[in-house]
Amino acid sequence: MADSTIQIGILGCAEIARKVSRAILLSQTATLYAVGSRSIEKAQKFAADNGFPATAKVYGSYEEVIDDPNVDAVYVPLPTSLHIKWAVLAAQKKKHLLLEKPVGLNVEEVDVILAACEANGVQFMDGTMWMHHPRTAKMREFLSDAKQFGELKSVNTCFTFTADQNFLENDIRVKPDLDGLGALGDVGWYCVRGILWAANYELPKSVIALRNPVFNKAGVIISCGASLLWEDGKVGTFHCSFLTNLTMDLTAVGTKGTLHLHDFIIPFEEKKASFISAVECGFKELALGWVPKPSEHTVTTDIPQEALMVREFCKLVGSIKNEGAKPEKKWPTLSRKTTLVLDAVKASIEKGFEAVEIISLYFFSNKFGIRASHGK
Amino acid sequence: MADSTIQIGILGCAEIARKVSRAILLSQTATLYAVGSRSIEKAQKFAADNGFPATAKVYGSYEEVIDDPNVDAVYVPLPTSLHIKWAVLAAQKKKHLLLEKPVGLNVEEVDVILAACEANGVQFMDGTMWMHHPRTAKMREFLSDAKQFGELKSVNTCFTFTADQNFLENDIRVKPDLDGLGALGDVGWYCVRGILWAANYELPKSVIALRNPVFNKAGVIISCGASLLWEDGKVGTFHCSFLTNLTMDLTAVGTKGTLHLHDFIIPFEEKKASFISAVECGFKELALGWVPKPSEHTVTTDIPQEALMVREFCKLVGSIKNEGAKPEKKWPTLSRKTTLVLDAVKASIEKGFEAVEIISLYFFSNKFGIRASHGK
Repeated sequence: MADSTIQIGILGCAEIARKVSRAILLSQTATLYAVGSRSIEKAQKFAADNGFPATAKVYGSYEEVIDDPNVDAVYVPLPTSLHIKWAVLAAQKKKHLLLEKPVGLNVEEVDVILAACEANGVQFMDGTMWMHHPRTAKMREFLSDAKQFGELKSVNTCFTFTADQNFLENDIRVKPDLDGLGALGDVGWYCVRGILWAANYELPKSVIALRNPVFNKAGVIISCGASLLWEDGKVGTFHCSFLTNLTMDLTAVGTKGTLHLHDFIIPFEEKKASFISAVECGFKELALGWVPKPSEHTVTTDIPQEALMVREFCKLVGSIKNEGAKPEKKWPTLSRKTTLVLDAVKASIEKGFEAVEIISLYFFSNKFGIRASHGK
Repeated sequence: MADSTIQIGILGCAEIARKVSRAILLSQTATLYAVGSRSIEKAQKFAADNGFPATAKVYGSYEEVIDDPNVDAVYVPLPTSLHIKWAVLAAQKKKHLLLEKPVGLNVEEVDVILAACEANGVQFMDGTMWMHHPRTAKMREFLSDAKQFGELKSVNTCFTFTADQNFLENDIRVKPDLDGLGALGDVGWYCVRGILWAANYELPKSVIALRNPVFNKAGVIISCGASLLWEDGKVGTFHCSFLTNLTMDLTAVGTKGTLHLHDFIIPFEEKKASFISAVECGFKELALGWVPKPSEHTVTTDIPQEALMVREFCKLVGSIKNEGAKPEKKWPTLSRKTTLVLDAVKASIEKGFEAVEIISLYFFSNKFGIRASHGK
């Protein structure tokens, strides 16, 4: 590969790292340069199974990956509770950071990570792949079109899947010491990001959890939902769960248009994805049908959304590395906003389903010395 | 027409009565026998414009319709605030009752109407047309299939349309003295019925309004939403509004399956309608797509859902009239349950978005001497 490719090191051999390794290969802008695991045998097997070149470095620790001076950036798919330690260490070693979601266990952790990235001039991006699908850009065009969509008034998202008994007992995402946010941090992350995306990332004023959260024996959320309210009356609602059939809905309703899709996070197919838009729909005479009917739009992509994510990340890293650019603030800002809402959902559940104001959480996090630039 | 057809009288010349007049003709089980309006000229024009036979009776009052001994049943599309008066009078004259929704301004009114129907042995049915579409029966099969759908865990409905300025200022549905429930009673009625339908008509334990209701200057709700909670953790959410693009969603998520449709109240087309079902969906290796993908099912119908509604109504009326059958309790029970939930949404809004228990409303209405048989 050319010297200009970004050399990526991977911390850990999580299942999701297999998908991202493939994405790194497909991106053609990055090299699978190193992988580290607490077990060197696991790292070796991972490298062999996932298309790492023969020259790739295989380490028996995470430290060695971030200490390797040839690693430009790290991809971190570790359990959430380990993010703060390894993300901060990586940033301090000037490694750009592609970090799995949820970014941290709460906004205070996220702020520590983002402050470390900012202090060290490294790019931060979380692993929310669907943000990078060309369909998402096409849907944004629709939502931004005042004549077609108008003003957003409500958005509903849902991400659920039926976890099997093994998952519900043993997966990292149901363990309080590994991924304490459970379903809220895992599937709920996407629901909240979807709502914020539809709202053009304007933070809601308040969040109220639905009164039916389900916890496992260890107290981890395995199903929950919430409503999000904006000052202007917009409302977002979501439901996330490990207990029901795989469902991935986003519906945004505006004064003039409606957007529907049923696979917003992972498209039904890898190379094409569609959405339904409805514009100024009305009824035929006597309401015997609709006119116009909603229409389906299909967007194709040569490479999958996760490879486009790697490309975008590497483009930003390359600009910093080769052209002295500043890190792009969009991505850390989105991660922080998503986390603020997740925190508010959790707080609302803990407070007996009270409305939790987002603004107070924001001021609270300021006490930790985080600059206001992250907050808007 | 044969003598066995049911002779229907219509009270008033509302726009919706045009659609139902056509449905009566299409049903081939009923006769457009009479129409009454406060203005005989309006009644004459309505009869002439809507396919009434030359022999039809045209009256300059509602009284004359219900006093006509040859009228078997009346269809009542009057403003909601007039329902209690005319429905009770019609029942007392032994007229079977097809009543537009919302049935009454609150459950106490509904109970008075239903008690009058019960006391006079007449059939009651509200005008919720989509209940009668063969698609609805097909979707019920899916939801009832323990292997395909499993147990319902969440259901979301949405019915909104963009009302124009004339509607927002002058329509019956925004006038406190005519249709005091506003958007909640009009579009919200369908949202609530859709949720109850998905829950197999089990009443929720409590209802909490979303904190973004919009009122017009006269204090009538023109946009609102709520969450409904069941004892077993099921949750329903809905959003209804006169302020956003025509949208008509129902999504029900079960432990094994998911049901989606975007036109549940009025199908996109009159003679065929579809829904999407997804059963035990999972991801391909590396989550590069879904397997199986959701599938679309199309149901055709020779006559539209509103004509099937008239047919069902006339079948029941015919059984009572010709065979001495008892009125079918299913339909009044569904109307009452829907109203109980609407009342709870309204009460929750009035109480500052507190959770309102459905059971307490039920006991409250019992004070009016209504028999418990309506409650379950």
